[in-house]
Amino acid sequence: MTKLNEHLQKLPGNYLFSEVARRVSAVAQAGPERPLLRLGIGDVTRPLVPAVVEAMKRAVEELGREETFRGYGPEQGYPFLREAIARQEYQARGAAVDPEEIYVSDGAKSDCGSIGELFGGGGRVAVCDPVYPVYVDAHAMAGRGGDFCPRTGTWDRLVYLPCTVETGFLPQVPEEPVDLVCLCSPNNPTGAAADRETLKRWVDYANETGAVLLFDAAYEAFITDPALPHSIFEIQGARTCAIEFRSFSKTAGFTGVRCAWTVIPRELEREGVPLGRLWARRQAARFNGASYIAQRGAEAVYTPEGRAQVRESIAYYQRNARTIRAGLAAAGLAVSGGEHAPYVWARTPGGMDSWTFFDELLRKAGVVVTPGVGFGPGGEGYIRLSAFGSAEEAAQAVERLTALL
Amino acid sequence: MTKLNEHLQKLPGNYLFSEVARRVSAVAQAGPERPLLRLGIGDVTRPLVPAVVEAMKRAVEELGREETFRGYGPEQGYPFLREAIARQEYQARGAAVDPEEIYVSDGAKSDCGSIGELFGGGGRVAVCDPVYPVYVDAHAMAGRGGDFCPRTGTWDRLVYLPCTVETGFLPQVPEEPVDLVCLCSPNNPTGAAADRETLKRWVDYANETGAVLLFDAAYEAFITDPALPHSIFEIQGARTCAIEFRSFSKTAGFTGVRCAWTVIPRELEREGVPLGRLWARRQAARFNGASYIAQRGAEAVYTPEGRAQVRESIAYYQRNARTIRAGLAAAGLAVSGGEHAPYVWARTPGGMDSWTFFDELLRKAGVVVTPGVGFGPGGEGYIRLSAFGSAEEAAQAVERLTALL
Repeated sequence: MTKLNEHLQKLPGNYLFSEVARRVSAVAQAGPERPLLRLGIGDVTRPLVPAVVEAMKRAVEELGREETFRGYGPEQGYPFLREAIARQEYQARGAAVDPEEIYVSDGAKSDCGSIGELFGGGGRVAVCDPVYPVYVDAHAMAGRGGDFCPRTGTWDRLVYLPCTVETGFLPQVPEEPVDLVCLCSPNNPTGAAADRETLKRWVDYANETGAVLLFDAAYEAFITDPALPHSIFEIQGARTCAIEFRSFSKTAGFTGVRCAWTVIPRELEREGVPLGRLWARRQAARFNGASYIAQRGAEAVYTPEGRAQVRESIAYYQRNARTIRAGLAAAGLAVSGGEHAPYVWARTPGGMDSWTFFDELLRKAGVVVTPGVGFGPGGEGYIRLSAFGSAEEAAQAVERLTALL
Repeated sequence: MTKLNEHLQKLPGNYLFSEVARRVSAVAQAGPERPLLRLGIGDVTRPLVPAVVEAMKRAVEELGREETFRGYGPEQGYPFLREAIARQEYQARGAAVDPEEIYVSDGAKSDCGSIGELFGGGGRVAVCDPVYPVYVDAHAMAGRGGDFCPRTGTWDRLVYLPCTVETGFLPQVPEEPVDLVCLCSPNNPTGAAADRETLKRWVDYANETGAVLLFDAAYEAFITDPALPHSIFEIQGARTCAIEFRSFSKTAGFTGVRCAWTVIPRELEREGVPLGRLWARRQAARFNGASYIAQRGAEAVYTPEGRAQVRESIAYYQRNARTIRAGLAAAGLAVSGGEHAPYVWARTPGGMDSWTFFDELLRKAGVVVTPGVGFGPGGEGYIRLSAFGSAEEAAQAVERLTALL
C-alpha cells in the first residue's frame, strides 16, 4: 500500500496567506461599511510597463508565425536574458557573475523550494524568525524540519535566527554550525536590509564552516541607500558559499507573468561537486524552462525605456512605504522597514498579539495586514504592511489606523 | 559540512536529449552535405493558432492597464480555465471530473516529477521499459530508484514493465505489488495507445492493491480511433486510484508557452488523506501558479475557433506520422505507433543497436532520430521518430532512409 510523505503531512493546516484570505473573505462577504484596504499580501498592483507589454506582444506574435515559432527553450533560460541579467544586475555592480551561472525559472518561490533537492535530508537548516514561510515549508516537506510543535509554532530540527529589535530585525551568525542558511535581504517580512559588513560576516561564517548561504534578494530593487549591497556577490568570498535567488515579480510586476532566476557561481562546490552542475541536472529532469513570452518581457526590463519605466513603478511603491512608515510612527507605533523594502514592520500597540490586532484592524478599520506571528513565533506582537497597493490606499490606511489608535 | 543529495548524484551523466543534441551539434558543425532533418526531440514546430495568439495578446494588454492588471493568480489555476477543461476534456467524454479536481501548472514535466513528493521514500515504483526519462529521474532523485547499474541501464529498486512487440508495446500488470505505477498512453516513446480493457485491468489492479496510477495522457489529442479512451477517468473505478497529467504542449503547441494540468479526484485517498488536499498544500508552498497569459491562451483552445484551428495543427502532425510509418514499413522496417501518437517506433535493421543506427542515420542520411535505448534497456534495438516536423521533412526523411536501407 502506498505510503504518504510523512513530512508533507506534518505541515500545519493552513498556509498563512490562505488563512488571511479566509478571514478577509468572511468580513468582505458580511458587507463592511467601508471598502477594505488590502495591505496584506505582498502582491504588486501597478500595471506592467509599456516596454514589457510591447516586448511580450511581439513574442506572442513571433510564436504565431511559422518562421519565428519557438518550442522548448533552453532549460537554463535563453542566452539573451541571461546575458542582460549578468551585465546589468551583476557586472554593472562589480560582481563578476557570468551568464553561464544564471538559471532562469518561473519564480523565486519555485527555486527557493527546489534548491533543497540538491542537499541530503540530514542537514541542519537555519532560518530567520520571523521568516517567509516558503523556506520553512520546503525544507520541512523534505524532512529537514523534523517535527512541528504547534505550541511553539516551530520545527524541532530547524535553527531559528531571531530577528528582533535588538538584532536590527536581521539574523545574527549562530553559535552552532549549520549546513544551510536561508537569508533574505531586504528582508521579508521585517523590511530590514543588510549592509556589507553584515553580509561579510555571513560569508566568512559560511566559508569557515562549509555552510551554504541561500540568499533571497527578491526585494533588492527597493534599496534606496547606495551603500547597501543588492547582491550577495558584491561581497568578497561569496562565490564559494552562496546561491542567490532573484525575481522579476516585485521589480517589474511579474507576479502573474512568472519569471525569476537563480545564480550558482562556478566556484561553489561541495564534496567536490559543482552545485551548478547538480542544479542544471535537476532542472533538466524536472523543469522545461520559463515561458518564452515571459523571458522576452524580462529582457525588455533591461532596455533604457524599460529601466526608466520600471524605476517609476518602484518609486511609486517606495513613496507608499514612506507614507505608511511615517504615518504609523506618527500614530505612536514602533515601526521598522519601509526604507529599503516594500514592507513596513510594526509593533502592535499595548503588547496585543498579532492575530488579535489583525482582526481588530480588519473589523474596525477595514484594513487588511499580515499578522507577524504568521511568519513564525518571532513575529508575534508585530504586523506587516505591504506598500504594493495604491497611493490612495496607503494614505487612507494610515488615516484609519490613526483614528483607531 | 553540507551533505549533497546522494540520489541526485547517482543520476547518470547526460540527460538523453542533451546527449542527442551533442552528437547532432558535432555533425552540424562539421557541415553536412545536406541539411539535417530533425525527427529527434518531440518538440512541436507549427505556430500557435490565431485564437491563442489573439487571446494572449489581449491578456498582455490587460496586464498593461491599471484597471485590468492581475498579479498572483490562484495557485490551482484560474477558474475560467479549470471550468473549460472540466467541461470539454472530461464532462464531454462522460468523465465526471469537476474544476475543483483540476490543478493548472507550468508543465506536465514539472507535475510528473513533483507528484512524487506526496509519497514516502520507501515505495516501489513501476515504470514502463522503454520509458520517458522524466519519471525515472524524478523518482530516482527522491531515492525511490535505489542504485543505478550502468551495465544494465536500470535502477535496482524500480520495477520495469516491458513494452515489447509481445505486449503490444504497452505495459502489463505486474505479478508483484507496487505502490506507484507510471503509465503513459498514447505511449512515449512506443506510440502505442491503450484501449479500455487494458486500462480497466490497471484500474482494477490498483484498486485491489492500493497502488496509485500516475497516468500521463499528454498525447491524447493524437488518438484517431474513437473507441480509445482519452482519459483514465473514462474508466470505471479510476477515481479511487488514479492521477492524470495533461498538457497544452503537444495539443496546442505550448512547449514554449508553458501550461498543463493535473487531475486528482476527490475520492482518491490514502491513509485517510485526500491526495488532492496534499497536492494543493504542496503547490501552495512550492509554486506560484501558471502565467496568466498562458492560461488565457489555453482557455482560447476551447473556443470554437480555437478548437478548429488546433485540430488542424494536430491533423498536420498526424499526416506526418502516417507518412513516416508507411514509408519505414515500405522500406522494410518493423514499425509501430504513429496511428494514435506523434511517435513512430521502429526496429533497427539487422539487429543493430540503437546508438549505432542513430549515428548511421545521422551521418549517412542526415536524419536525426532518438535512439530507443535512451528510453531504457527495453528500447535497445529501436529508434523513435517524431512527427512534429514539417510535412516536407517527414517525406524527405522517408526518402533518405529508404535510400540508405
